[in-house]
Amino acid sequence: MSGIFVGIDLGGTNIKIGLFDSELKLVCKTSVATEADMGPDVVIDNMVQTVEKLVVDEGFALSDIIAIGIGTPGPAKYSEGIIIRSTNMPKFKNVPICKMLNEKLGTPVVFDNDANVACWGEYAVGAGKGVKDIVFFTLGTGIGGGIISNGELVHGCAENAAELGHTIIYPDGRKCNCGQRGCVEAYASADSTARRAREAVEAGAESSLKEVLDEKSTITSKDVYEHLAADDNLAKEITDGTAKALAITCINMLHTTEPKRIVFAGGMIAAGNVLLDRIRDYFDEHIWSIKKESVEIVFATLGEDAGIIGAAALARHAEQQGKLK
Amino acid sequence: MSGIFVGIDLGGTNIKIGLFDSELKLVCKTSVATEADMGPDVVIDNMVQTVEKLVVDEGFALSDIIAIGIGTPGPAKYSEGIIIRSTNMPKFKNVPICKMLNEKLGTPVVFDNDANVACWGEYAVGAGKGVKDIVFFTLGTGIGGGIISNGELVHGCAENAAELGHTIIYPDGRKCNCGQRGCVEAYASADSTARRAREAVEAGAESSLKEVLDEKSTITSKDVYEHLAADDNLAKEITDGTAKALAITCINMLHTTEPKRIVFAGGMIAAGNVLLDRIRDYFDEHIWSIKKESVEIVFATLGEDAGIIGAAALARHAEQQGKLK
Repeated sequence: MSGIFVGIDLGGTNIKIGLFDSELKLVCKTSVATEADMGPDVVIDNMVQTVEKLVVDEGFALSDIIAIGIGTPGPAKYSEGIIIRSTNMPKFKNVPICKMLNEKLGTPVVFDNDANVACWGEYAVGAGKGVKDIVFFTLGTGIGGGIISNGELVHGCAENAAELGHTIIYPDGRKCNCGQRGCVEAYASADSTARRAREAVEAGAESSLKEVLDEKSTITSKDVYEHLAADDNLAKEITDGTAKALAITCINMLHTTEPKRIVFAGGMIAAGNVLLDRIRDYFDEHIWSIKKESVEIVFATLGEDAGIIGAAALARHAEQQGKLK
Repeated sequence: MSGIFVGIDLGGTNIKIGLFDSELKLVCKTSVATEADMGPDVVIDNMVQTVEKLVVDEGFALSDIIAIGIGTPGPAKYSEGIIIRSTNMPKFKNVPICKMLNEKLGTPVVFDNDANVACWGEYAVGAGKGVKDIVFFTLGTGIGGGIISNGELVHGCAENAAELGHTIIYPDGRKCNCGQRGCVEAYASADSTARRAREAVEAGAESSLKEVLDEKSTITSKDVYEHLAADDNLAKEITDGTAKALAITCINMLHTTEPKRIVFAGGMIAAGNVLLDRIRDYFDEHIWSIKKESVEIVFATLGEDAGIIGAAALARHAEQQGKLK
């Protein structure tokens, strides 16, 4: 037996934990309540006890763990292993999570933000496998990002690189939650897609989405894609706006770190090929013609396990690089 | 004596060559005609003979050369040492320049494109010194770029990364030479700055630049900055357009590879602080407020020697990394 890796996806509501063998094959996984309102000590105890139980249940010892990987949303000093604060876990302030886990479990801990971790998961065993340069987007409430260049995550000077949702595609355009104007997130996140649809209906656009708004007082991105499938014109127009914004961002990334593959993840990829095809169409329409064939634009394949797989994969990578501490 | 490095800046008209000590201090430099129309063999002989003469004149032997660095415009397979073709040297087709130089001079040769080389020069000993993450722009006829992330150049999957002039800031905007619409190069290069001024004058804008156009039948970016200094309103408006385009691109780079410093080089920085200040103003106006202080925006300091310094510095870096071959 060559040892195991543990991947932890620490969210505000649940902690997902997976054990992986040295080839990153899932041995077992589970999920427990975070109990964020109880504070860091309880949250970390929940993690520790769950890891211990999983390990023992599967016939391993704690000493079989080569390393633990963990991902959370920031802001954090990832390289120092410290969560600075957390929107979903308000009691977390400057929590040295790596040190605390290490003291209780006796194994090295590798830490990164949730988008980087998911990006690394896709890179290691998912849709990004087999190339050394990828760009990764999560299309959820906001738009998160990750960049792998020459086989390594790009972290940036203050570990805040790849905030790709806040790259600007329409200067002086729509206001984003961050305060900037014209961010791709203000057009193409699940929330912004839904908001643009609602605004259009409220402004009098003809659409079957009007009934949705009348009935539920809101429109979700899922509604948009369902009505798109039913050939609603407004839903098509809104989806086109989302796809174009993402395509321009893909072009900009191609001219920046030059990925071989661009991977989209997050709730909104449930829209399926109709979205992916439109992104590719706009990409082909707007890209420098000699670069048309140069990048593959694909959907992520790991789904909800990307967080635990990516965390375990990052732990394995650190071990392979001799960077465990 | 701990050996010397040679930096070569291969242009279509001239070849600049510098000898540097192991601390990258310039020992001596010279420039010879490229004679590009004579074909690769002659061009390479010109380089070889000039290097040999410089070395001997300074009292060194060829065996004192630790490595040679060379930069040219692409397209090239840099890692394989091959110039695929060259706009300025039409007879260059798939020329194995590194191999040819190595065979004649007996020393390892390191090769990269001119923008990356200049970027590395600024990073090693110029305006980018002291940080590990920079983004570099050359504002000339076009806009070139370089990215250093965690102390290494970002090359991308096909060695065409950092074509930053072709990132799009105004989708469906001005047509760029590359065929795309809305590239930053279509607004903010020296040529585009001049062209926007000329178009405005031709369209009837009131400006002291009208006399320039009447007299010379053209307007250069230098004219724009001279008339800006003389308080011409159109020159101010055109400069603002250039500065805003560059500021948006800076914001996008901050959210991508998160540089600590952004360095502008090229002919247009002769415009001076009036341009730099406007870039910073627009940056502050458009950036997410929490990131306002996070990046330094500066002008390059190496001037015309950036090419030879950068090439020598890349050679030294390859040696320090044990990557000479």
